[in-house]
Amino acid sequence: MKQLTIIKVGGAILEQKDKLKILLRIFHQCKGAKILIHGGGKEVSRLSRQLGIPVRMQDGRRITDADTLKVATMVYAGWVNKTVVSQLQSLGTNAVGFSGADGNLIVADKRGVADVDFGFAGDVSEVNQKLLKQILSLKWVPVLCAITHDASGQLLNTNADTIAAKIATALCRDYAITLKYVFEKEGVLKDVNDTSSLINMISKSDVDRLQQEGIIQDGMIPKLQNAFDALKEGVQQVSICGIDGIYQNTGTDIVI
Amino acid sequence: MKQLTIIKVGGAILEQKDKLKILLRIFHQCKGAKILIHGGGKEVSRLSRQLGIPVRMQDGRRITDADTLKVATMVYAGWVNKTVVSQLQSLGTNAVGFSGADGNLIVADKRGVADVDFGFAGDVSEVNQKLLKQILSLKWVPVLCAITHDASGQLLNTNADTIAAKIATALCRDYAITLKYVFEKEGVLKDVNDTSSLINMISKSDVDRLQQEGIIQDGMIPKLQNAFDALKEGVQQVSICGIDGIYQNTGTDIVI
Repeated sequence: MKQLTIIKVGGAILEQKDKLKILLRIFHQCKGAKILIHGGGKEVSRLSRQLGIPVRMQDGRRITDADTLKVATMVYAGWVNKTVVSQLQSLGTNAVGFSGADGNLIVADKRGVADVDFGFAGDVSEVNQKLLKQILSLKWVPVLCAITHDASGQLLNTNADTIAAKIATALCRDYAITLKYVFEKEGVLKDVNDTSSLINMISKSDVDRLQQEGIIQDGMIPKLQNAFDALKEGVQQVSICGIDGIYQNTGTDIVI
Repeated sequence: MKQLTIIKVGGAILEQKDKLKILLRIFHQCKGAKILIHGGGKEVSRLSRQLGIPVRMQDGRRITDADTLKVATMVYAGWVNKTVVSQLQSLGTNAVGFSGADGNLIVADKRGVADVDFGFAGDVSEVNQKLLKQILSLKWVPVLCAITHDASGQLLNTNADTIAAKIATALCRDYAITLKYVFEKEGVLKDVNDTSSLINMISKSDVDRLQQEGIIQDGMIPKLQNAFDALKEGVQQVSICGIDGIYQNTGTDIVI
């Protein structure tokens, strides 16, 4: 099977020009088929505040009212996506940016209201596998942002970690996939302020325990959930790591 | 030669949900290969003001400092582009959004400083003809926004009318092109408040005269310049019209 590297980058890396440059250079050097998926939530929060739009989160997930959806679409599909694409192009990687609306790449359902109304948040219902394979066969390098749509004209905000898991899942019958969640830390840490507390390998039962103990919290919870989902659905290799983890075997390997 | 319809939409149409819906429905019904190019400048001005960024124009062209570039990229490549793509997809048109950075589609040079420093404004230097033809041969409908880049990692703001002219020019050896600049008026009017003053046909010498008389001004000046440039470079048919002009022969035909 052909190899495919899927890198999801988020958090503070997108915020720091120098770190983003290093990440993109390393991504550029990855051999073979590859996909970059990015978040940009910190910028969405900042711009929202500047515009007087309240920032509301629940269990690491954003509550997306109509104004927040507009900000998220502007930041993810506009500023972050095109900045990343342009920089990759300057290195010689043939990057092409996509949202889930483009070519109907990722269709999502507006999340139903249970305890919390997440507003225009989308849960992925279908990945356009055929289009993704077509894009990869053209030797383009897709750069995906976290905006999806419902195929009826409504854009939706979707967690970028989830998109990475769903994209990997959709392609794992055709490619041997390495999915890496890259962020500002070295991996899952027992103590976020102590690099030496890195957990090299983590299973679902470890996570349940660490979550009960309050060691794993906030955005790490859905990130780990997405990682486990991808593994369960047949994605060959999943890890959570820092920038160095893209080219060396550091970080936290996810195991079932 | 195969037919290709290129529609540039701007101005107040993008601002009014109902008008945009009508435009997209008509565009959806256009047969054969087609490209949609959009502006969105009014929204850029509004968002800039909300963020306390000064809005500065010179002869109908925007002066683009770093903050304005960010706003323009967010609005054009993010909100407007993905809104249009998602709505076209809901109608059944296989729309895919592109900026000039994606696939190196449109490379521009940062405009040199003469009397005015336009900041991060880009003058188109190269259109990736091969990629555009590939996209059209896949039967995708490209939706292009007015963000380009210099191929060295710098995004640039480019007039959407100019992009339309350059795209049409790049493809007019391979396609019989109809290029239509669609906006909120019925065409070029002698009196902007009087529909019956529509000029059915306009030549370069007409424009020079009307400009001297102060009848043609602001954004209409570069729009007409772009239309003449496209004609001169071999684009088969160019007009400036309202929404109805997409499917019927109303509006102002540009002649050399």
